[in-house]
Amino acid sequence: MKHIEPPDRLKIPVAVSARHVHPSQATLDRLFGPGYVLAHRHELSQPGQFAAVETVTLVGPAGRIDGVRLLGPPRGCDQVEISRTDAVRLGVPAPLRLSGELQDTPGLELQGPAGSVPINHGLIVAKRHVHMRPADAQRFDVAHGDVISVLIDSAGRDVAFGDVVVRVSPEFRLEMHLDTDEANAAGVQAGDTARLLRRHAGR
Amino acid sequence: MKHIEPPDRLKIPVAVSARHVHPSQATLDRLFGPGYVLAHRHELSQPGQFAAVETVTLVGPAGRIDGVRLLGPPRGCDQVEISRTDAVRLGVPAPLRLSGELQDTPGLELQGPAGSVPINHGLIVAKRHVHMRPADAQRFDVAHGDVISVLIDSAGRDVAFGDVVVRVSPEFRLEMHLDTDEANAAGVQAGDTARLLRRHAGR
Repeated sequence: MKHIEPPDRLKIPVAVSARHVHPSQATLDRLFGPGYVLAHRHELSQPGQFAAVETVTLVGPAGRIDGVRLLGPPRGCDQVEISRTDAVRLGVPAPLRLSGELQDTPGLELQGPAGSVPINHGLIVAKRHVHMRPADAQRFDVAHGDVISVLIDSAGRDVAFGDVVVRVSPEFRLEMHLDTDEANAAGVQAGDTARLLRRHAGR
Repeated sequence: MKHIEPPDRLKIPVAVSARHVHPSQATLDRLFGPGYVLAHRHELSQPGQFAAVETVTLVGPAGRIDGVRLLGPPRGCDQVEISRTDAVRLGVPAPLRLSGELQDTPGLELQGPAGSVPINHGLIVAKRHVHMRPADAQRFDVAHGDVISVLIDSAGRDVAFGDVVVRVSPEFRLEMHLDTDEANAAGVQAGDTARLLRRHAGR
């Protein structure tokens, strides 16, 4: 159901992250050839990040998924972000993690035009989170690391998401990141916004 | 986060519906041969319903999905239930509907061992709902057709689902039905339960 619109200053734009790979340069070299440089497809909303023209195939014991977008710039460690639906399709036990928290994560095989690369860790389902600048955090009365709940008010699939982690940095732009399972479960459409419901106890 | 457990009498068992097809006999005849009778694989939780041994392939303009379970007994009209993630994978605009509300729905192609069957309507994403008996409805203080919110309290993916439709019948067993996108977004695991949060205004 559509309720009363929250004031603009309390809205959080929602971005949907489809499955993607943040490759290391070493992995890029093996997938596409030595010294390979990713081609820019489009800038992402978080400053400095971009979607590449290049895609790879994810291969797991139960299936494969073609056309998975690479994001740049290259990172120190490979990180592959998939949904739980993807994890079932591939047959891989991807744990729920924040970006960069890759200790004790499984890997899988990546296939590119120059070769296949079995990566031995870095596969995660991203924990939902909100990026914001310090001024946003002040306005919402939250701090880096807080866990909040937000409401998405859609046509027929209203959802309040708990366990949403707040990430604050001057480098960020205000945006909630959901994976495709979460966005689909909430009926999210382009341009949708979320609003802060509450901060969890424990802060 | 794991909160305090609700009392047993307020718990609603959660069932996850993977993509499936309720075929008509006419469609079964074309997929498997004239007069075909589905083989029982296992009973479903709702009395009289069963999962068949047989599966089919769904074919859409953007992709195909193999191994999609048929449910019996055959119905008067074909009904195909997929997730929004599946709809994107297949490239079909499946609308959000309650089971049986098939007017103005699109179709897609089914493939079985005896042939391919283009069905011209019956493709939906199931609107989330709770099945219950009249005694359950009385205990929860809800009525058939009410729209409620329920909380799923999981490890790292708490979700409150709004827009949950109450279906009451003496033939039902108390159970909330989510699709795989919804279950994955909420981190649902086997044996999880939901609890009633509130009835929406408008009842």
